[in-house]
Amino acid sequence: MKLWWERDDLCYDDNNELIFANKNIQQFAQQVGTPLFVHSAARILANINRVEQALQSTGLASRVFYALKANRYAPLLTFIKTATDCGIDACAPAEVIHALSCGFVPSDISYTGTSVSNADLDFLTGLDDLKLNCDGLSMIRRVGERAPGREIGLRINPAMGTGYGSNELLRYSGEKPTKFGIYASELDEAIELAAQYDLAITRIHFHTGCGYLNDQLDSWEEILKTSLAMIRKIPTVSALNLGGGLGVPLTSDDSELDLDQWAGVIERVFGSSGYEIHVEPGTYIAKDAGLLVLEANTVETKSGKLFVGVNSGFNLTMEPVHYQLPAEPVMCRLPDSPEKIFAAENMQPTTFVGNINEALDVMYDDLPFPSIEEGSLLVFINSGAYTTSMGSNHCMRGEYSECLLLDGVDLRK
Amino acid sequence: MKLWWERDDLCYDDNNELIFANKNIQQFAQQVGTPLFVHSAARILANINRVEQALQSTGLASRVFYALKANRYAPLLTFIKTATDCGIDACAPAEVIHALSCGFVPSDISYTGTSVSNADLDFLTGLDDLKLNCDGLSMIRRVGERAPGREIGLRINPAMGTGYGSNELLRYSGEKPTKFGIYASELDEAIELAAQYDLAITRIHFHTGCGYLNDQLDSWEEILKTSLAMIRKIPTVSALNLGGGLGVPLTSDDSELDLDQWAGVIERVFGSSGYEIHVEPGTYIAKDAGLLVLEANTVETKSGKLFVGVNSGFNLTMEPVHYQLPAEPVMCRLPDSPEKIFAAENMQPTTFVGNINEALDVMYDDLPFPSIEEGSLLVFINSGAYTTSMGSNHCMRGEYSECLLLDGVDLRK
Repeated sequence: MKLWWERDDLCYDDNNELIFANKNIQQFAQQVGTPLFVHSAARILANINRVEQALQSTGLASRVFYALKANRYAPLLTFIKTATDCGIDACAPAEVIHALSCGFVPSDISYTGTSVSNADLDFLTGLDDLKLNCDGLSMIRRVGERAPGREIGLRINPAMGTGYGSNELLRYSGEKPTKFGIYASELDEAIELAAQYDLAITRIHFHTGCGYLNDQLDSWEEILKTSLAMIRKIPTVSALNLGGGLGVPLTSDDSELDLDQWAGVIERVFGSSGYEIHVEPGTYIAKDAGLLVLEANTVETKSGKLFVGVNSGFNLTMEPVHYQLPAEPVMCRLPDSPEKIFAAENMQPTTFVGNINEALDVMYDDLPFPSIEEGSLLVFINSGAYTTSMGSNHCMRGEYSECLLLDGVDLRK
Repeated sequence: MKLWWERDDLCYDDNNELIFANKNIQQFAQQVGTPLFVHSAARILANINRVEQALQSTGLASRVFYALKANRYAPLLTFIKTATDCGIDACAPAEVIHALSCGFVPSDISYTGTSVSNADLDFLTGLDDLKLNCDGLSMIRRVGERAPGREIGLRINPAMGTGYGSNELLRYSGEKPTKFGIYASELDEAIELAAQYDLAITRIHFHTGCGYLNDQLDSWEEILKTSLAMIRKIPTVSALNLGGGLGVPLTSDDSELDLDQWAGVIERVFGSSGYEIHVEPGTYIAKDAGLLVLEANTVETKSGKLFVGVNSGFNLTMEPVHYQLPAEPVMCRLPDSPEKIFAAENMQPTTFVGNINEALDVMYDDLPFPSIEEGSLLVFINSGAYTTSMGSNHCMRGEYSECLLLDGVDLRK
């Protein structure tokens, strides 16, 4: 019996204990303590390689830039720099400094920020090789004042968006104007402004949502086509940054993103253009490479509803609560065979809640789940992205351990 | 001309510059830098005194416990301990330790947590004088195992809730069961379980929402009455903790909470009971005593919509984005008289956005606002609670300065 999320590097062994990156997670968590985040270097590597190979199939030159904001755990960043050609997508000066501190060099880094201050620009324009993308007229003008003659990218906004389950919260662009990028209505002015400061526009950047899967590829293709009309206005452009947004399955209803289909879209729209293609996945690289291990400390029925309370909360796992993106809990150790544990008669609707003093601190509402004892360990899968990186110490429940598991990776061979 | 949020300690002076706690905020922010949080000790003190006096009018013994999770800035906590009789409402062991480190003693602290681990309970039951409230059967049992004979409180859940603008996100109880407290259906079992471990139930705690104002006082009275039926089942109870939730006006449409009316509700429901009354305001004490000063670094129209970008984001101001609770921006310095600046013909819909790389990073959408220049300073009022305390370093935009302003307070007189 195989559960929907099981894969070669994440599955129950013959003793019904969860193995991840060749590690027995129950044993490891008992040694290290919880809350515990574990990240698999091998899975990170496989995710990057898969995207790189898909891009290579388009016949266009390409580079992947990991979106640091998804997970900036320093050992993970240094591993990526050491093991791959992947660059970094940064959106704040402190992210650039952090990437440099982990081993990246300015030419590895693509910067696309918003509401950028003059202090930010003083720093950013000081790094000549940084791939600096301007997301508005104000930024073009202020970059021009500081670094006339510089090479820049433009972030454009095609006014179309897509994302996981058409989740409105995750749309970076769409019918309603957002703060991001340069709209078609301002593009001519942007081009003139850049010329005024002798800024050479060599890249176009756009990003249109988060977590898209196969069902969203058609609308993604439409966005790419629409963008092409804006891109063609600027003959100096040599590289296109298609942003991130590639999703991973979050529930049993989702299918894996088909990267061949995805690369097919890129090839159809841009294949004959000769542009170099950049992409900036964060979720796709890190999310399914990380687990969060927690203790079920309270199992109790309240007013007819079964609650399982755990020793962390939405301060470390913002996505289920504030973005309606599920992070499914699974058992670290099955007390019996999967066939018995997951038999229909043993499953009951179970609500997983955290230890933050807020009503919305619900990680999963009414998930059919086997019976579970206080003190047992739970694993929240898909916890490798947008967890610690946007985590807080709300209610002073912010403490955790974090580990990069390197098993299965040997770069010296 | 007086704006809706102006008051004696927060207003424009004759030079049209914003004064808060007797400080010129423009000058101070230029010295210290932004993002900058400033908290007024005098306003904190006035807010606490106002609640204490209202409670005294009921004729019942009473005590205020400040909800530390609203703002745990250490100087502010030590000021409260030094200047008032106010205790602390804590919901995590680390909050208890933090309160102790700022000068409070265990008997000052009321603890009401949820999803409490055994490790938490080992610590909490070690503090004999801590006012420990149990929020479920599991916690009663595990407290009993560790500290038989101890005095405890019970957090009950009346299955009714209220809050700012009937905001569902802020309801701690209501029709749908939440993780909080003991419902009427489990109360008998809770009483039996406590008896089994010889735990004396001397307090009842309940909390029913956040940010309620005058319009919600009728439903709050209903909740108190409903709770009374549950409370009367436990003759050993001597104190009632009514939780927090007292709100402050967030927009020009809101009126100040009438504390006389509020105390009138308490008197009507509990006046003849002889119970000691505890309350746990966080928002009411800290929210309107704090400002966030930011720089407007980007002023730009995109696709017909006017955006003002500032040098912080929803990582430090979660409430507008994730709780739909407004934090209104105001100008730090008016370039002309209020009559001219706020003349109808000079106001235009303005959208205030942060520097976080997410579409939802909108602090205020389409607020009528005077024209504003890049580089000018903005103040977000009502930023003293649930800002830094639940703030994150998302996109590595988490840096800020914070100051307690003591002007207007002299305890030595």
